[in-house]
Amino acid sequence: MMGSMDDYRSWYAKHADEIRDDYFQFLRFRSISTEPEFKEELLACANWVRDYLKNKCGFSSKLLETVGHPVVFGEKKGGSSKETVLIYGHYDVQPVDPLELWESDPFVPTIRNERVYARGAVDDKGQIFYAMAAMRAAHELGRTLPVNIKFCIEGEEEAGSIGLEQGIGKLKKELSADSLLVVDFNSFDETTPAIHLGMRGIMTMEVTLTGSNGDLHSGSLGGIAYNPNRALVELLAKLYREDGSVAVDGFYDGVEEPTADEKSTYVAKYAKDYYQQQFGIDVFGGEKGRSIQEANLFRPVLEINGIGGGYSGAGFKTVIPAKATAKISCRLVPGQDPKKVAERIKTFLMRHSKMKTEVHIHSGAPAYRGKAHSKLSQAIQKAATEVCRKPCRIALSGASIPIVSTLATELGVEMVGMGYCLATDQIHAPNEHFDLQRFEKGFMTVALGIENL
Amino acid sequence: MMGSMDDYRSWYAKHADEIRDDYFQFLRFRSISTEPEFKEELLACANWVRDYLKNKCGFSSKLLETVGHPVVFGEKKGGSSKETVLIYGHYDVQPVDPLELWESDPFVPTIRNERVYARGAVDDKGQIFYAMAAMRAAHELGRTLPVNIKFCIEGEEEAGSIGLEQGIGKLKKELSADSLLVVDFNSFDETTPAIHLGMRGIMTMEVTLTGSNGDLHSGSLGGIAYNPNRALVELLAKLYREDGSVAVDGFYDGVEEPTADEKSTYVAKYAKDYYQQQFGIDVFGGEKGRSIQEANLFRPVLEINGIGGGYSGAGFKTVIPAKATAKISCRLVPGQDPKKVAERIKTFLMRHSKMKTEVHIHSGAPAYRGKAHSKLSQAIQKAATEVCRKPCRIALSGASIPIVSTLATELGVEMVGMGYCLATDQIHAPNEHFDLQRFEKGFMTVALGIENL
Repeated sequence: MMGSMDDYRSWYAKHADEIRDDYFQFLRFRSISTEPEFKEELLACANWVRDYLKNKCGFSSKLLETVGHPVVFGEKKGGSSKETVLIYGHYDVQPVDPLELWESDPFVPTIRNERVYARGAVDDKGQIFYAMAAMRAAHELGRTLPVNIKFCIEGEEEAGSIGLEQGIGKLKKELSADSLLVVDFNSFDETTPAIHLGMRGIMTMEVTLTGSNGDLHSGSLGGIAYNPNRALVELLAKLYREDGSVAVDGFYDGVEEPTADEKSTYVAKYAKDYYQQQFGIDVFGGEKGRSIQEANLFRPVLEINGIGGGYSGAGFKTVIPAKATAKISCRLVPGQDPKKVAERIKTFLMRHSKMKTEVHIHSGAPAYRGKAHSKLSQAIQKAATEVCRKPCRIALSGASIPIVSTLATELGVEMVGMGYCLATDQIHAPNEHFDLQRFEKGFMTVALGIENL
Repeated sequence: MMGSMDDYRSWYAKHADEIRDDYFQFLRFRSISTEPEFKEELLACANWVRDYLKNKCGFSSKLLETVGHPVVFGEKKGGSSKETVLIYGHYDVQPVDPLELWESDPFVPTIRNERVYARGAVDDKGQIFYAMAAMRAAHELGRTLPVNIKFCIEGEEEAGSIGLEQGIGKLKKELSADSLLVVDFNSFDETTPAIHLGMRGIMTMEVTLTGSNGDLHSGSLGGIAYNPNRALVELLAKLYREDGSVAVDGFYDGVEEPTADEKSTYVAKYAKDYYQQQFGIDVFGGEKGRSIQEANLFRPVLEINGIGGGYSGAGFKTVIPAKATAKISCRLVPGQDPKKVAERIKTFLMRHSKMKTEVHIHSGAPAYRGKAHSKLSQAIQKAATEVCRKPCRIALSGASIPIVSTLATELGVEMVGMGYCLATDQIHAPNEHFDLQRFEKGFMTVALGIENL
């Protein structure tokens, strides 16, 4: 084993520049899946990933069509083993606004202090790319893979994975595997690796209030029209109780309290002062009487991700807007059905709103919680422990990868989540960045983890 | 008098095309005073107005420098009279967003159904321009003006008139007059003219809540960070009581109930069904138990003109924003001090907010209420009645022209507001438009009103 570790390390050292160049090329695609104008760029990005797997990693590869952006599929046979590991990641990224807060162009990767700054530097281009690079290294080092490896790299993770969700029935055979390695997770902290065996579910929706058929002058109509901004803040404020819990009837239906075993396995990574120092958070938002760990891992939350109504540019505009709108998401825990939760919130909003209200429910996904002792889980833990020289932790994530519970359920496999992201990497925010040392650890963990099987 | 009416009518008929061409040239300047990038365009627009007064109307004219955009000043001596009428208007316009709702470019004036569509078509370029055109007609018809006429056409009305407000002490002598004609008001309805003798005051402010030093991932931090969007909606919802009144301590201090005389003079223009049909307003927002007339003319209101926080573009972004912000304005009635009201709202916001809060108070102006029987008021009423063949009404406005109370007070003159705007003209909104027939009525009313003096 030490033999292969040294082999991979020296291969990486020799090819570091080339890996970085390819990584940067990957990052330059503006593959924002939530914005229709980037469709062509997503396709170009998918083709690039397909070609990399074929030309550099010795995989057979192709695009799988979906109703949305295509999935890149790759496959390589292992030695005599009949086992298959499916590696999941995504080539799409989050939107970039507010653009003015980026210190460098989000699609021109830039290195500052040994960190790569770009949208997708971590999530998930950086992470899935070190896995691809690990397969390239295995190929060039002439290693026989102990298992069959498949890649499923989709283009809509940040937009609800609609294509893959809807197409899973048809794609099931192609994607069939014995276990699922999802390379889109955090490490435990700066120096401690982790595997993740579960995550919260998600449900997103949009609510729009309409008060008139056009924007109104707030002098001529002020005191006459009911302002949609007022109706919206009154409505949204009702969603929360004074103790921080969600006031929607039935929101917590089915939610189970964590067991003592879960509480001790999945310990919180950080205390409040960490969040204070790291993010400048002075006021905390969870339910009263719940610890940080509970609030983030075992309790569902409802967040207002966006509100907008009227004029919010420079200066002032004395307008009563025709419409006001909010984007709302929930993070869900095992026992909650996203559809039921969405319907309950919709009912609540419709009942309490004072004016014409439309609610549009987007896709959702239930929470997932796997088992700790699968073969893949142990192989990855062992590799990560060796690479980082610190015991690998077993964790849950407060975030969601909606497609993962679908894949795990439909393919009938146990999921292992790995990754070297940190909460400070600014994923989904301006100045997203990835540390090149953690990138290398990711590369080594995938390479050795597969060899461990 | 009929003689001069016929003279002006036939002059207008002969010059209609030319007037329209000049009007359109005026409208093409993107003179948005609230947005710093348009500074040069405002200056070009001011120069154009100055030149029009000089070259076409026989006025001496110049720009008066201020700390902001310049004021266009024009002056022409009347016959033997020592009386002076100061005509006030503004060449700046409101911002144009949401741009996608405009059916034609806001700065490319377009005629559809006898209406001119453009930003500023009415407010106030259209209105002040028919007054300028009336002075041109008087000049070309060789009429001797019965009084001295001055123009004060400023470039910051939509941005709080800061330059003119701050410079009024220095400019007082130049602007000195016996009465003030403000050409920036509505008519009573489609066919009935009105003069306005008062308007509500205004106060604007901006509140920003900050929860962290950067946008956060709503999965990783959801349940930990207190979301500024949540804090903002909770805070703003507290501004209103269930009965629609404003919950800020002392907000109504000094507000007097309208007298029986005021209630019968200043009757409401429209009933609720008008607003329903015209603007699609189904839910009304004033205080419970107050009529439309009271709510709009005699009661102060607080409006949320803009809210923004997080992602509100297409698709979805699972973010907890670092900041959330709201733009708030009040319309004030006689007896209310804008500064005191602003401080009370600020105190309320600071006391009730759950996180770091900054309040920025902009400029404000008190309400103004004039007297009905001044000489100018009677001259304009008479002209409007003749032009429209319907008795001119005396009205108050729910809107505000902050600078007007300053001018009236500082110059020690009575103000008369005139104009042919309708609430349906979409001023401050997409597709602002002005009816060419009402434009002509405005021209005739100014021309004959001055002759009546």
